[in-house]
Amino acid sequence: MAERILSGERRALARAITLVESGRADHRAQAVALLAEVAKAGRQALRIGLSGTPGVGKSTFIEAFGMMLTGQGLKVAVLAVDPSSARSGGSILGDKTRMERLSRDPLAFIRPSPSQTHLGGVARRTREAVALCEAAGFDVVLIETVGVGQSETLVAEMTDLFILLMAPAGGDELQGVKRGIMEMADMILVNKADGDLKPAAMRTVSDYAGALRLLRKRPYDPEGFPKALPVSALAEEGLKSAWEEMQTLAAWRRDNGFFVSNRAEQARNWFEAEVREGLLARLTRDPAIRAKMARLGAEVAGGRMAASDAAERMLRELDA
Amino acid sequence: MAERILSGERRALARAITLVESGRADHRAQAVALLAEVAKAGRQALRIGLSGTPGVGKSTFIEAFGMMLTGQGLKVAVLAVDPSSARSGGSILGDKTRMERLSRDPLAFIRPSPSQTHLGGVARRTREAVALCEAAGFDVVLIETVGVGQSETLVAEMTDLFILLMAPAGGDELQGVKRGIMEMADMILVNKADGDLKPAAMRTVSDYAGALRLLRKRPYDPEGFPKALPVSALAEEGLKSAWEEMQTLAAWRRDNGFFVSNRAEQARNWFEAEVREGLLARLTRDPAIRAKMARLGAEVAGGRMAASDAAERMLRELDA
Repeated sequence: MAERILSGERRALARAITLVESGRADHRAQAVALLAEVAKAGRQALRIGLSGTPGVGKSTFIEAFGMMLTGQGLKVAVLAVDPSSARSGGSILGDKTRMERLSRDPLAFIRPSPSQTHLGGVARRTREAVALCEAAGFDVVLIETVGVGQSETLVAEMTDLFILLMAPAGGDELQGVKRGIMEMADMILVNKADGDLKPAAMRTVSDYAGALRLLRKRPYDPEGFPKALPVSALAEEGLKSAWEEMQTLAAWRRDNGFFVSNRAEQARNWFEAEVREGLLARLTRDPAIRAKMARLGAEVAGGRMAASDAAERMLRELDA
Repeated sequence: MAERILSGERRALARAITLVESGRADHRAQAVALLAEVAKAGRQALRIGLSGTPGVGKSTFIEAFGMMLTGQGLKVAVLAVDPSSARSGGSILGDKTRMERLSRDPLAFIRPSPSQTHLGGVARRTREAVALCEAAGFDVVLIETVGVGQSETLVAEMTDLFILLMAPAGGDELQGVKRGIMEMADMILVNKADGDLKPAAMRTVSDYAGALRLLRKRPYDPEGFPKALPVSALAEEGLKSAWEEMQTLAAWRRDNGFFVSNRAEQARNWFEAEVREGLLARLTRDPAIRAKMARLGAEVAGGRMAASDAAERMLRELDA
């Protein structure tokens, strides 16, 4: 299977992603072995995170941006991190018809967000799917998320560049973007810079450019970054400029070492998060431990034992 | 020490709280034993959580509300959950001069937030300090927090009643209270309902009352709850009514069993959180495990090992 992925077989890639999404223990063991095997090839894509609230035209943008990239001969994978997919029963990308042209493009690969119950599971699956896409020889891996809760932080922590897609704002009002999100952004793209909305989009670009200037300059980035730029996914304008700016930024970071050190840090964090999750999984995996937890929990709930005391007993049990 | 706490000695209580705040292993063992011992007395206070952004008059309110309670002969403890105290070097309550009268009241006990680096540590210490205050015979334990981040959720999860203190809003605009916070509130108090601000405060009360009506009614609460009420900490008005409403709500919940089941659930969650934290603490406590984590982390960061593979190895090591 590793070989077929490395040779770029799309069906093998799709099946491998299904494997990493599985919760079964035997699947997990296979997935870990597969990931270790394909990692040896050392292939890397440019990982781009993209966040934008519903209505900002994210699907249209990804389709237009993706087609522009494949038009240059680049292989593009699109993954989604959608923490709500478990609830809504479908992912933002579930309906590939929303990216009809891109999904038919032989150089593109689109994979919707899996139905997972917690963000931690989505995070693991997405990190592993990125690794599989890189092994399959993709040049660019786009990871998209809706701008809710912690999913943006999560995507920023697994990508080389994190892009915010925004809509033109009315007047000079900024769209209540949280400062924390602005600080994560490597670039802000204001979509819908076409037709009647163009003047508003241009104003919004300069508002964001001003707001970005007020944030602390990043020592590892060139003068003038992070930038705010206008794009029109509909008219397919500004996409090439945006891509050029992304490449400039990535090249600069490669030159000064930040690109590599950032990836190393992300990989280390991923490893540590996996260990923590694996450790906590013990509390629910073993029936005997589950029963003991429930028994002590009932003692505490009934007021017959102090929580800290019960916790100490449980931990001693786990040590034994 | 347990005996001295149960007899209501304030110095013993203060020292016991210092003990639960300590990070030393021998102190921890003593704290666990002490908590188990005092829990046997089965004493309970009414636990009231209070959240409000800076400028809303929280200190003035706690002082006036606390004095009103001690005036009725009730013993009142005030604890703070301040996740920023580690950074700012001081707590919101660090300066007791802000509650000058209450801090001199023999029926009151005020304890500032400890300097902790993470919210988890503050949560454990506060839960344990609440247990100690209850053992020392306090009737009401007020836990205050500034309205930032997750500290409100944390306080709501360790109290019987969760109160939001708000300032009068201009016009009919609500103060950008997040829906999630509104849903946690058992009562909203609009402070500064005095002098020039009184009309604005009354309007704000009816705005919040309307907003609360739109939220789903809680099956365990009487008709008309959660309520929004005006208070003036400065003029000491509305405090008795607020207290009466709190007692009505608590009595209702005691009668229908929610009070007890909610506490049982909170205690069980606390126990489970302690076990999880204790389990994760192993990754940093043992030097050999720390070294192994660092070694594998470096392999992953250097791209010589897949994160999932390294995590599996680490987990096998921990199992051995």
